Amino acid sequence: MPLVSDEAASGAVKAVFDDIRATRGTDFVNNFWRVLANDPALLERTWTDLKAVMGKGHLDPLTKELIYLAVSLSNDCTYCVTSHAAAARAKGMSDAMLMELFAVVGMASETNRLAAGLQVPVDAVFLKDR
Amino acid sequence: MPLVSDEAASGAVKAVFDDIRATRGTDFVNNFWRVLANDPALLERTWTDLKAVMGKGHLDPLTKELIYLAVSLSNDCTYCVTSHAAAARAKGMSDAMLMELFAVVGMASETNRLAAGLQVPVDAVFLKDR
Amino acid sequence: MPLVSDEAASGAVKAVFDDIRATRGTDFVNNFWRVLANDPALLERTWTDLKAVMGKGHLDPLTKELIYLAVSLSNDCTYCVTSHAAAARAKGMSDAMLMELFAVVGMASETNRLAAGLQVPVDAVFLKDR
Amino acid sequence: MPLVSDEAASGAVKAVFDDIRATRGTDFVNNFWRVLANDPALLERTWTDLKAVMGKGHLDPLTKELIYLAVSLSNDCTYCVTSHAAAARAKGMSDAMLMELFAVVGMASETNRLAAGLQVPVDAVFLKDR
Amino acid sequence: MPLVSDEAASGAVKAVFDDIRATRGTDFVNNFWRVLANDPALLERTWTDLKAVMGKGHLDPLTKELIYLAVSLSNDCTYCVTSHAAAARAKGMSDAMLMELFAVVGMASETNRLAAGLQVPVDAVFLKDR
Amino acid sequence: MPLVSDEAASGAVKAVFDDIRATRGTDFVNNFWRVLANDPALLERTWTDLKAVMGKGHLDPLTKELIYLAVSLSNDCTYCVTSHAAAARAKGMSDAMLMELFAVVGMASETNRLAAGLQVPVDAVFLKDR
Repeated sequence: MPLVSDEAASGAVKAVFDDIRATRGTDFVNNFWRVLANDPALLERTWTDLKAVMGKGHLDPLTKELIYLAVSLSNDCTYCVTSHAAAARAKGMSDAMLMELFAVVGMASETNRLAAGLQVPVDAVFLKDR
Repeated sequence: MPLVSDEAASGAVKAVFDDIRATRGTDFVNNFWRVLANDPALLERTWTDLKAVMGKGHLDPLTKELIYLAVSLSNDCTYCVTSHAAAARAKGMSDAMLMELFAVVGMASETNRLAAGLQVPVDAVFLKDR
Repeated sequence: MPLVSDEAASGAVKAVFDDIRATRGTDFVNNFWRVLANDPALLERTWTDLKAVMGKGHLDPLTKELIYLAVSLSNDCTYCVTSHAAAARAKGMSDAMLMELFAVVGMASETNRLAAGLQVPVDAVFLKDR
Repeated sequence: MPLVSDEAASGAVKAVFDDIRATRGTDFVNNFWRVLANDPALLERTWTDLKAVMGKGHLDPLTKELIYLAVSLSNDCTYCVTSHAAAARAKGMSDAMLMELFAVVGMASETNRLAAGLQVPVDAVFLKDR
Repeated sequence: MPLVSDEAASGAVKAVFDDIRATRGTDFVNNFWRVLANDPALLERTWTDLKAVMGKGHLDPLTKELIYLAVSLSNDCTYCVTSHAAAARAKGMSDAMLMELFAVVGMASETNRLAAGLQVPVDAVFLKDR
Repeated sequence: MPLVSDEAASGAVKAVFDDIRATRGTDFVNNFWRVLANDPALLERTWTDLKAVMGKGHLDPLTKELIYLAVSLSNDCTYCVTSHAAAARAKGMSDAMLMELFAVVGMASETNRLAAGLQVPVDAVFLKDR
């Protein structure tokens, strides 16, 4: 699918591009949104959701970006890892924090397989918690 | 694989169980370690690594637990989601924070597939960053 | 593994290449089969199965291609997404249908994680159905 | 997370439950929505999106359900496979169609791994298509 | 889908059940085949393929079972892990070998994520090999 | 993350690079370790674990490499598939063995989805085994 340029953006697409710029305080609109713009309704839904999910809430913005990054890595999405690493850096992630995130993701991936392979029964106390 | 009880634990296994208790300040040793104890060397390596990765570093302990939880969810490990949700709660995660984590994981899973399906080209500016 | 050219194809490999051409009504044999041809028995089994699975049945050919495409996207296989998108277009898939497929795949990926994370209990009525 | 009953549903949650009932023409609200209701904003966003994605469009409703089912199976979501199989049956899916969907999903999963393992280069003609 | 009993098996289904028994030298036909038997053509194709893939070849039978087990674990298929662990035991896998397999699978899962997250460039020497 | 050259390697990083060379009997240190070296503690832990897991044990070295390769393929890690295929070749894997491994991985991926989709109940005899 082609990238939708600013010149080609009109109506709902232009409105979303404008809101991305206003929300992020930058003139840059990255390729994800420009490709998604081939389906204006999908673009609009996705941006509205992302803005709501990643906006002010109970977790701080950097923590949310780190979770986003960890999931994108688990789902093997190179574009998403690259773009959300940039977003996380903009929100304060250092190189040392990124390496530590990789270590946590690696460790979790290892123990996830061990727990599944060993078919570890859930501890009664964890169920009682709920 | 059977659970290794405290009575059956000796040598390296007992040492790890003791260190888990000392590190966490609780008498409780959860099933993951009791099953892993069927291979003492694997138990020792895994615990040593987990302690190092999840210990003091550049990310705070709760953030690390949330990342662990997000990866475990992406890898569909029910045991890990359940045990690390308990660990995250012990470090301060509220119900509202958990629901927000689910929302971020869901959102990332959706956009990961969209970016991969649409084969979005990585923006030049993201590559320049590196 | 190298691509097996028409010149190098003989015996079982030539027979499969010929059948691919006859079945599809085209002279084009795509790279997947040319690489698979390094193991003639694997080539033959895979082609025989694909022909049976994707042939006339209870679901129409385009629907099967769309399902194939959705699975390939979930499994992050760029080659498969690219080749089956071409196959789906040849069977009538429009750009609008492709964008809609991406939207369904994205939506399912999101709710799959939400349902798993929230450990939603299966409704009694769904079990009764079976 | 607990299930939110009709009695406990008010405000945004009640409005979504009512809309689910009106849209589907049934009094039944399945557990997915009742658990999601613990976060009313997430419930509302998810239902609004699902209604838009699965509603009238360029693919027919049964095809969309089959795609949803195939993705849920690829993501190993038992709840989603069970609930969307019920939804697909309600829209006309027969046992024979379900078995055929499984065959396509299985075949795709096999060839996805073969193509990835063999690192098959994308055919020039597929790239020219775009 | 219901289990197909020996009494209900006829024609192609009976022939496959008989061949499973003859090939394995046991009267036992496990549930996977009994459920698959709801689609006789799918049953026949799958059994024929499995017999060919897992039969005499360049890798010894136990090694193939261990690979099957490792993949099933990576794909989170509890039924497959359980049934192929039984098959591997029948071919000589000890408890110590199983624990070692889990350790390799865990280690690979960890380094897979590290390599992907760090976007490690492939070494020129590995490409020259091909 | 940049590659750490021999010139830039000191302290713990140099010690690991030296041990990789001594253990493998080659002067070559591949990129995975050079990128990981940006976090010396992570480098050290990962190498120590890998050496222990892949060293002398109950499974022979080639079998372990094949398992590693199969998991890397299931996790879609191109770097890992490429580097461990090279390692497996060095330990005796032929082209025919590699093609057979792909066939087993493909077959397992197919039946994993069939078993999950069909929700096959685990046979009582498999549970009794444990």
